[in-house]
Amino acid sequence: MILDQITQPNDIKQIKPEDYGQLAEEIRSFLIDKISVSGGHLGSNLGAVELTMALHLSLDLPKDKIVWDVGHQSYTHKLLTGRKEGFDELRAYGGMSGFPKRKESPCDPFDTGHSSTSLSAGLGLVRARDIRGEDYTVVSVIGDGSLTGGMAYEALNNASRMGSNFIIILNDNNMSISENVGGVSKYLNNIRTAQGYLELKDSIYYRMKDVPKYNPIVKGIQNVKNSVKHLMIPGMFFEDMGITYLGPVDGHDIQAMTKVLKEAKRVKNAVVVHVITKKGNGYEPAMKHPARFHGAEPFDIETGLPKKRKVKANYTDVFATVMNKLGERNEKLVAITAAMPDGTGLKRFAAKYPERFFDVGIAEEHAVTFAAGLAAGGLIPVVAIYSSFLQRAYDQILHDVCIQNLHVVFAIDRAGLVGSDGETHQGIFDLSYLSSVPGLTVMAPKNKWELSDMLKYAVAYDGPIALRYPRGEAYDGLKEQREPIAYGKAEWICHEKDVLLFAVGSMVKTAMEVKELLSGAGISASVVNARFVKPLDEALLREAVAEHSLIVTMEENVLSGGLGQRVSAFFEQENIRTKLIHIALPDAYIEHGNVDILRKLTQIDAQSVFELIQKER
Amino acid sequence: MILDQITQPNDIKQIKPEDYGQLAEEIRSFLIDKISVSGGHLGSNLGAVELTMALHLSLDLPKDKIVWDVGHQSYTHKLLTGRKEGFDELRAYGGMSGFPKRKESPCDPFDTGHSSTSLSAGLGLVRARDIRGEDYTVVSVIGDGSLTGGMAYEALNNASRMGSNFIIILNDNNMSISENVGGVSKYLNNIRTAQGYLELKDSIYYRMKDVPKYNPIVKGIQNVKNSVKHLMIPGMFFEDMGITYLGPVDGHDIQAMTKVLKEAKRVKNAVVVHVITKKGNGYEPAMKHPARFHGAEPFDIETGLPKKRKVKANYTDVFATVMNKLGERNEKLVAITAAMPDGTGLKRFAAKYPERFFDVGIAEEHAVTFAAGLAAGGLIPVVAIYSSFLQRAYDQILHDVCIQNLHVVFAIDRAGLVGSDGETHQGIFDLSYLSSVPGLTVMAPKNKWELSDMLKYAVAYDGPIALRYPRGEAYDGLKEQREPIAYGKAEWICHEKDVLLFAVGSMVKTAMEVKELLSGAGISASVVNARFVKPLDEALLREAVAEHSLIVTMEENVLSGGLGQRVSAFFEQENIRTKLIHIALPDAYIEHGNVDILRKLTQIDAQSVFELIQKER
Repeated sequence: MILDQITQPNDIKQIKPEDYGQLAEEIRSFLIDKISVSGGHLGSNLGAVELTMALHLSLDLPKDKIVWDVGHQSYTHKLLTGRKEGFDELRAYGGMSGFPKRKESPCDPFDTGHSSTSLSAGLGLVRARDIRGEDYTVVSVIGDGSLTGGMAYEALNNASRMGSNFIIILNDNNMSISENVGGVSKYLNNIRTAQGYLELKDSIYYRMKDVPKYNPIVKGIQNVKNSVKHLMIPGMFFEDMGITYLGPVDGHDIQAMTKVLKEAKRVKNAVVVHVITKKGNGYEPAMKHPARFHGAEPFDIETGLPKKRKVKANYTDVFATVMNKLGERNEKLVAITAAMPDGTGLKRFAAKYPERFFDVGIAEEHAVTFAAGLAAGGLIPVVAIYSSFLQRAYDQILHDVCIQNLHVVFAIDRAGLVGSDGETHQGIFDLSYLSSVPGLTVMAPKNKWELSDMLKYAVAYDGPIALRYPRGEAYDGLKEQREPIAYGKAEWICHEKDVLLFAVGSMVKTAMEVKELLSGAGISASVVNARFVKPLDEALLREAVAEHSLIVTMEENVLSGGLGQRVSAFFEQENIRTKLIHIALPDAYIEHGNVDILRKLTQIDAQSVFELIQKER
Repeated sequence: MILDQITQPNDIKQIKPEDYGQLAEEIRSFLIDKISVSGGHLGSNLGAVELTMALHLSLDLPKDKIVWDVGHQSYTHKLLTGRKEGFDELRAYGGMSGFPKRKESPCDPFDTGHSSTSLSAGLGLVRARDIRGEDYTVVSVIGDGSLTGGMAYEALNNASRMGSNFIIILNDNNMSISENVGGVSKYLNNIRTAQGYLELKDSIYYRMKDVPKYNPIVKGIQNVKNSVKHLMIPGMFFEDMGITYLGPVDGHDIQAMTKVLKEAKRVKNAVVVHVITKKGNGYEPAMKHPARFHGAEPFDIETGLPKKRKVKANYTDVFATVMNKLGERNEKLVAITAAMPDGTGLKRFAAKYPERFFDVGIAEEHAVTFAAGLAAGGLIPVVAIYSSFLQRAYDQILHDVCIQNLHVVFAIDRAGLVGSDGETHQGIFDLSYLSSVPGLTVMAPKNKWELSDMLKYAVAYDGPIALRYPRGEAYDGLKEQREPIAYGKAEWICHEKDVLLFAVGSMVKTAMEVKELLSGAGISASVVNARFVKPLDEALLREAVAEHSLIVTMEENVLSGGLGQRVSAFFEQENIRTKLIHIALPDAYIEHGNVDILRKLTQIDAQSVFELIQKER
């Protein structure tokens, strides 16, 4: 195995060029083997094997810096920097992260996770290098999908004519997680296909120069800043912004890439190296099903099928089904996703109502204000975005939707702990940042039927309204508890005495388990499903205080600004004194790992809650 | 007066074309007169007089929709839609807003305030129109400054080849609030100056077509999607994205604009109309001092000088002075602004340390992640952004700065009530959204000296740290109270008994006034300057509870998730029972008006607090 010869950064430089092909193959096999067991991002990593090899051959790590946009394509980089053993515990609790981490290796200069940050961060490193008079190369690797995010463009705008080297690798596979959208994508596609361009790029200018008849034109051309030659090359989009453009180059041809990287390092400017790669390259199922192999569950290598057959529906499926039904009933219903038609379940809606579906690219800010515009125009938009990504649109929710009190429905998937993607992806802040926005109603369903009821309620409501639900399998217990949703009203699940478990969303299930444990210890407990985090059911809380000696709030969100503190604030404002315990996540970032482990560690699992109640009661 | 003939929408269409010039002049005089008394946005409005007239001549309001980006350039639009009387109470409490407001007129289809939202909102209206089978024209008017915001680009990316009309007016005055920055700006500048382009645009293609020698080339050109002709026109940047480009056109020539708008309405696509305007046009002082006349205080028309001479320094001045000093002492200190070198006071730093100053354009997201990169590269970045605009970067603060625990200093100006700009600009959410971010330290100074001390402390600290301070005159009382800043420690101002006023930032001054009032009523009160909202000074709070029968928290922030609720949460967690009153802003958006009036209305002024304490005690 050639791969075995690589145990630390720069070891790849000892490999003979004729062995590069085999090394790439070994890396692919290794990744497929490991990810088929652990799960993880496969397609993007298979697409970036040769690109990463070329970068490592051209750079000196850790002195030089590579910033990986999003970061889930950094597996080969991890392999080439001595982290091979880490793949045995990839994305497991205590094991190696699926993203670059400064604390994991000096070869990871900047942590990533959300999209479109690498150019801004890379620019920061470049400017710091120059101001401190240091000498290293900074490379940001960004996919064409990430280029649909406005932040990347803000950075490009600032990378203009900088007089100092900054290498931007545009890893262009014509995909976000799903197929790419928008003008930039089409533009890049034109470059890819317009071979004519490349052949033409010099000829016209020079041929015209030789014909006396065209002298005045040629002179005119020379006088304007961007010459015809300049205009003819692909990459005008970048050149227009004052950024040098090189490429396109085959992203699976190591020698071509090392050659162009050498050239790129000489440019005294920001320089885009346009690299064409194929997502999932070298593994048939990943090439055929790019969305499924974006973030893959453990799978069978032979067939490419998931090892664990899905038995129960997850919340996303339920959302998808209900959206389809509602779309039929209500012609005003429109749906918006930010590059997640698969992940959010909107693919089905898209297929059925293509004219009422909008995939805006990785552009959460635009998604929300666009929805505000749709609502102002008389439609009912449902914006489906993962909890941690919706953080990007905090201002748009507050400023563009809620100040105008527009009827926009926020369907927030992946709320709460998400597990193996780790700290950048945990959806644990939404109850806090949403609850402080005036005029916004915030809900969370206890089970799959309630998700359905709440979504219908939200679509029928008039005003800004959010519902958040977790990743993964939908809870299908408590089927009989299905009181109609009423504004700001919680739901009694069991009405007893002593302890009141006042839980929201995923924690209602936990509350039922806690109730069982308490019952076994001879303690009676009521369970209330809060349903609304904002507004709170104040009448129920008042009633409950009289009947219970202890109220336990339960939420899968950070404590600060969440449900529990809202309940406390209400009691305080009403001058009601009662014993309260808040079950919530700590004021901290929570690393990757199995959700059950994370719940235990953060003590929001049933056993921990049970023990705490016994202790505190 | 021709202007008097205009009392409702579309009245302008009755004016004879030969009178347009006089009408424009009358509008300018009217605006200068009114704004010289009330204060308000002058430069942008003077620049957009003819553009607005041309739009009103070309459209049918309120059926057709104009979305004004940012919205402070909408004064002429207000004049032409029957709101002339409103200018007597412009930006005053209960009076007319300085921004478009749906509740003010059916001719305002979408509220704006923050930058770069108009294209997303306009696209929403367009799609709603098409889905509902309605027939009206949607126009978004965006400045070249707003085009530096990534959100605008996200929208452009989605406006590609839409098969339906959407008119984007690019109001290009080569300015944000201050001078514009970045690649896009340079690109637009190239278009503006390259007259050669316009003359060349058709000639080359057609001339080549006639020369048999070039037939193969011409054929090749025809074969690639973007023909040479296409490549030669200005606006490639937009054409590249699949957006039709028309222009540039003189933004002070009404007939030229109505002609191009007629053409624009026929395009079955998103179409950019590039209009060149001059900020402050027609008023010499505004053309000379664009930053000062962006948002002007009342001024003398003759001289252009502010009517009220500034006597006391404001917080921005103090920040500017200290930054300059710190810049000298510490070569690692760098400063970042998002298009606000004047407003944030960083202009002086920029002049002295140009290589350590970065104006990134209206790009708050990039600003913050760029700062994270600078910090990762070993520098100490101070990011100066207004409170309400920093909402844009919530995810970048959480995800790019705080997860990595990078030493970035956030200098948050315009925190608290800002007054006449109204609900979109009030900086009243920052304590809430910042306090729920793990790892972030949050401070606010009580007076000008403390701002200086805190800024020095923040620069010397190691980790993410924010300080927020209000708009306007800096409090210069309590000069002697200047205990050195210690991490997480509050400061006793007066240590008495009975009532404890636990105040932060601007509310310390109010607390001193309340203390006086209480003293007059025979009630003794202590005053503590909280200094840190996160972490709280828990030791002091514990001590204070024993000595006081009532604790009053005071903050200029919404109640939800702010200082008061954090204090409550601490007492609850410690099982400490004490009587608490929270003085904070309500869970609501607060309209424009004089800050003193707004403070009274929201009952955070000294008299209201005093009365509440008397009542509740």
